[in-house]
Amino acid sequence: MTNETHRTHDPDAALRAALYPGSIAIIGASDNPNKIGGRPLVYLERFGFTGEVYPVNPSRPLTLGRRTFPDLASLPQVPDMVIVAVAGQAAVEAVQEAATRGVKVALVMASGFGETGPAGRAEEQKMVAAARAAGMRIVGPNTQGLANFGNGAVASFSTMFIETPPAVGPVGVISQSGALSVVPYHLLRTRGIGVRHSHATGNDADVSVCELATVVAEDPELELLLLYLEGIPDPWNLAKAAAIARRRGMPVVALKSGRTPAGQQAAMSHTGALANEDRVVDAFLEQHGILRVQTVNELVESADLYLKGWRPRGRRLVAISNSGAVCVLAADAATAAGLPMAKLADDTRARLGRILPGFATTANPIDITAALLTNSNLFGDILPVIAADSAADAFLIGVPVAGAGYDVDAFARDSARFAADTGKPIVVAAPQASVAAKFTERGLSVYTTESDALRALGHFLAHCELIERVAQRPPPLPVPPSRSAGAPTMLNEADSLALLARAGLPVVQHRLCVDADQAVAAWRAIGGPVAVKGCSSAVAHKSELGWVHLKVDGEAAVRAACAAIDAAAQAARVPLDGLLVAAMTGGRRELMLGARVDPVFGPVVLVGDGGRYVEAMPDVRVLLAPFDETQVLRELRRLRIAPLLDGVRGEPPLDVAAFCAAAVALGRLMAERAAGVVNVDVNPLMVGAQGEGCVALDAVVYRADGSIGERVA
Amino acid sequence: MTNETHRTHDPDAALRAALYPGSIAIIGASDNPNKIGGRPLVYLERFGFTGEVYPVNPSRPLTLGRRTFPDLASLPQVPDMVIVAVAGQAAVEAVQEAATRGVKVALVMASGFGETGPAGRAEEQKMVAAARAAGMRIVGPNTQGLANFGNGAVASFSTMFIETPPAVGPVGVISQSGALSVVPYHLLRTRGIGVRHSHATGNDADVSVCELATVVAEDPELELLLLYLEGIPDPWNLAKAAAIARRRGMPVVALKSGRTPAGQQAAMSHTGALANEDRVVDAFLEQHGILRVQTVNELVESADLYLKGWRPRGRRLVAISNSGAVCVLAADAATAAGLPMAKLADDTRARLGRILPGFATTANPIDITAALLTNSNLFGDILPVIAADSAADAFLIGVPVAGAGYDVDAFARDSARFAADTGKPIVVAAPQASVAAKFTERGLSVYTTESDALRALGHFLAHCELIERVAQRPPPLPVPPSRSAGAPTMLNEADSLALLARAGLPVVQHRLCVDADQAVAAWRAIGGPVAVKGCSSAVAHKSELGWVHLKVDGEAAVRAACAAIDAAAQAARVPLDGLLVAAMTGGRRELMLGARVDPVFGPVVLVGDGGRYVEAMPDVRVLLAPFDETQVLRELRRLRIAPLLDGVRGEPPLDVAAFCAAAVALGRLMAERAAGVVNVDVNPLMVGAQGEGCVALDAVVYRADGSIGERVA
Repeated sequence: MTNETHRTHDPDAALRAALYPGSIAIIGASDNPNKIGGRPLVYLERFGFTGEVYPVNPSRPLTLGRRTFPDLASLPQVPDMVIVAVAGQAAVEAVQEAATRGVKVALVMASGFGETGPAGRAEEQKMVAAARAAGMRIVGPNTQGLANFGNGAVASFSTMFIETPPAVGPVGVISQSGALSVVPYHLLRTRGIGVRHSHATGNDADVSVCELATVVAEDPELELLLLYLEGIPDPWNLAKAAAIARRRGMPVVALKSGRTPAGQQAAMSHTGALANEDRVVDAFLEQHGILRVQTVNELVESADLYLKGWRPRGRRLVAISNSGAVCVLAADAATAAGLPMAKLADDTRARLGRILPGFATTANPIDITAALLTNSNLFGDILPVIAADSAADAFLIGVPVAGAGYDVDAFARDSARFAADTGKPIVVAAPQASVAAKFTERGLSVYTTESDALRALGHFLAHCELIERVAQRPPPLPVPPSRSAGAPTMLNEADSLALLARAGLPVVQHRLCVDADQAVAAWRAIGGPVAVKGCSSAVAHKSELGWVHLKVDGEAAVRAACAAIDAAAQAARVPLDGLLVAAMTGGRRELMLGARVDPVFGPVVLVGDGGRYVEAMPDVRVLLAPFDETQVLRELRRLRIAPLLDGVRGEPPLDVAAFCAAAVALGRLMAERAAGVVNVDVNPLMVGAQGEGCVALDAVVYRADGSIGERVA
Repeated sequence: MTNETHRTHDPDAALRAALYPGSIAIIGASDNPNKIGGRPLVYLERFGFTGEVYPVNPSRPLTLGRRTFPDLASLPQVPDMVIVAVAGQAAVEAVQEAATRGVKVALVMASGFGETGPAGRAEEQKMVAAARAAGMRIVGPNTQGLANFGNGAVASFSTMFIETPPAVGPVGVISQSGALSVVPYHLLRTRGIGVRHSHATGNDADVSVCELATVVAEDPELELLLLYLEGIPDPWNLAKAAAIARRRGMPVVALKSGRTPAGQQAAMSHTGALANEDRVVDAFLEQHGILRVQTVNELVESADLYLKGWRPRGRRLVAISNSGAVCVLAADAATAAGLPMAKLADDTRARLGRILPGFATTANPIDITAALLTNSNLFGDILPVIAADSAADAFLIGVPVAGAGYDVDAFARDSARFAADTGKPIVVAAPQASVAAKFTERGLSVYTTESDALRALGHFLAHCELIERVAQRPPPLPVPPSRSAGAPTMLNEADSLALLARAGLPVVQHRLCVDADQAVAAWRAIGGPVAVKGCSSAVAHKSELGWVHLKVDGEAAVRAACAAIDAAAQAARVPLDGLLVAAMTGGRRELMLGARVDPVFGPVVLVGDGGRYVEAMPDVRVLLAPFDETQVLRELRRLRIAPLLDGVRGEPPLDVAAFCAAAVALGRLMAERAAGVVNVDVNPLMVGAQGEGCVALDAVVYRADGSIGERVA
């Protein structure tokens, strides 16, 4: 699936031919416009494709009125693209022949390959191997096709383009699934938004959604890219697409399904894709400035706002309605959408008070009241006053009911002027189609209810903030993770702590001792009560073996602890690497710090609350390594225990800076991969009050290469 | 706002006249059909009101073609209802005159009263007083009006009924807000659902939303009642309405706004309503079987399912689609909606496998694949197989794309037959209007996307479960809380523990001592280490004064603790009621148990996680007292710490039964109100392992009457 095997052609040129073919042959062309071999013929003509189109079918001289060729060999030229509309073995053979003849890209519509099981997967791999050998790219199999309305290259058999005619516009949709390439298209078209690209990549045997996105993102006419993803096997392609989009100032929104176990199971049945760990997906998409949404509605509902070209500076909302109830619902919905209500200046409120009737509300949200029915100028009168107040970053106008007796035209005109004057995002909530139409005509973004409108606005504003943040600190391009050489090896506690200490993490003062005499010496050197623990690379859960003795003080006690550990080791027949004597270090709270290598996304670090119930009641965030202190802090602030960081009930704040530094050090260790570390569990990481630092009291590290680090004496 | 003052008439008869008036006079009748004095005249005629209608206006003989009277006195009869469409002082006078003349109900449309401040509130109270003296009821002021389409009594000036013409149907909508009485109406009508009642009560100066609901709920033609509430000042009326609805098998759904601080602030500006504590509202609505939803969309989107008359038995879902991606999204959305995916029988899967193509998925969700395009019978072939499997309680059919080449008529017909055969709820997700229309025509409930459909289905199924649960244990009708006689008095720890012990809560073994000698004797009697604490009804936070000494053992230590407490009391100049010596009782986890009297909803009990951070990271549920063990257990299972109840990481389960019994005892104490207890904080309540019980280690009780309980010797 990587590009390295495409040596004969420029691989990107072959891929670009999928969207911008000069000529297209249809293997298995059909006279029936509702068959997969017929529809592309109809679409290419209907939607204005200007290149050559060659129907291929040995059984007829004409297909839907076009001259038809018996085979690829008979064509007057080698086509850039072949659409493979035949099934089974015929499809495999068509791909092989196309590859041999120098075709750039084959679009394989037939299903019955990788999605059916091992036999189908083998056939699919045969096609891919033939294509790779010749430098040809494959889209599919099991794809509904690609549709570039910009040049009419609509190589698709989707029914949707008959039912909902296209209008070329600034939005692109890419999906593995055929349905999810056209449902967003349909919903956008229904909202009056033009779509330029609507592509389905099917089984992604060669070209994946993410790789196709790298080419679509380069279309200079595109302004918004929407993705439906069931699996992300190649995050490096998605990161590349995101980087291209970022350079161009184009937002990317992704609906990644399989966010629940039930969804992941269904995805496995559907595409056979391995499940991605959902919180890692969250972290990855955020790192690359891609907004993740949860539903198809959310995928499309903010599109209008992106396309207006707003440049919002914050999230503070002002809501205005002729209904007090809509004001209340808007305030609730704003909170749910992460939008604080702006505080209007006293002067603004005084000026509003002089315009609005006495029973209206001049505080935000602003309730014009039903007085609007008797005075349609109220909107036009108050909007300039509100525009003059810098408190707001965005606006909602709610018109739950209007019609006879209201000058809705004037409301819409006044609102549009207001939007132009302020240059700030504005959403309108108007359940009545007749009212909505008036606002839409004036170029405003209209939703049925305040909650729909504010969810869309909230996503948009959050995404603008995210894009800003990512622009200031562009993420590294991930590389495909290398396969580990063998089974990972666990290091014992001493080696684990030593490795972490070398990486810059603060670890507890400790000594590895060979016998009780050394242990007693260590206790004297450390001073005061110590922990005495059995140390072995064969045991991850020491306390279950009775190997952990805490608050041990005095020579006799140390010797007794050592003897108990020795006895327990012999009883359990587990080899002891030594006896670890460590200082008893206090602190304010145990936090959690861990790391591992995600098979797809690479090294990740986990930060969160610590203690006994980390697994039963997880309160954890994931960071993709490497990262800096600011990023750790942002994730800590998202934890449930965030209030404790600053100290509550008279407690001093925790040393968050020390924790962040430790997390960053761990992230660096994981990202560099120098030490071959594949898994780290610091348990516990004891964090002190501000200025007191933090310290790893115990740790387990796994390395892929099995080498053992130096001992700490 | 209670009924007790209506002595002259049957108060319910007066209230019923608001919905079923025999005759209506309009004070301030207008010739302009877009004015508030004109519209009701138009509507009463247009929507078929058959009673007498009397326009009243001294300045003209005819209004919109109807004979007009100069004043109430000139009418040929005393009307059942007057619509007051004049403003300010004229409205007050009109109400006074109507009351004097024996009118049953006055609908006051004018605004400028209670919602504007103290002066307006005084005027409003004047109207209410006049009405009460005469047994007349008032709806409003500041109301858009009442609309009963069942009899044409549409006493409303809403623009909506012009814009979206009514169709009489089985749904009723009641709202304080005018807009929120007609937006649900509009959205229901747009979905093809008929509406019978659409009422706005305005300022609720006399008749509240909840009281009106008690009358609306009795309409035998009604099948579903939707409420928009900004405040619930009279839960007893809502409980009565819920009880009536329950008796009739009619579901009640409520959108209660002001669920966030921003929303509550806006609600206060809008209606001047005191904020209800949101989690108490949750508990109250649930107790009475009312489903609470968060948005206007949610208020209406399940209506169609209620009206189908399904009798669901569970929540297990089967999803079927011609798109694998919709299957995956449906599984995600089902999880979000609380619907587990049903596990189909092996035999069902085998039978499906014989019908569907090899690359289709026979596991639930069932992916028919695009093969549907070539074989439109697949739907009709598989549905009977699925119907025969008892695993499912409900179904989703997702048709993301269809049209040319598909036999959508057949899909819809087959689906409708399937629904009839199974008698189980079914929702359809079809984004294309043309496809949706085919399914709607066949009587199925259609939504745009799978997430919309499953949210609606999830709410419906959850509500059916709730209704079932409430039917088995009907809640008590709440009574208006009595005002407390004076400021509550705090009891000292000994009195607090004694009171709780008498109520049946297990409390720690302890003695109240007058001096160190008694304390030493108490230590000896208890045996082993004890807690020695200062005891005073003047101090709630003992540890801050240095009054809490734990693990005190030995005579000298006990005497030292007593001396230290004495010294601290003298230094702080706080009177000591005595020295409390208590056993040191261990346990597995501190839980939280508290109680207070909500000013509106009455006594509530709080259960949750305990410890230092109860306020910083609350994990608490609210129960309305009284309740039983089952109800406590259900709330405990909703806590974040629920996994700990059963024991994790080898821990034994907690003694949940003992905790439930303690909570029930506290609930009984609060509900009986015998002891005058208004506030209880058991902190901590130490819960042991299963069989070990639980014990209150400390407690603070407040009583309204100030009386002090007996001392525990």
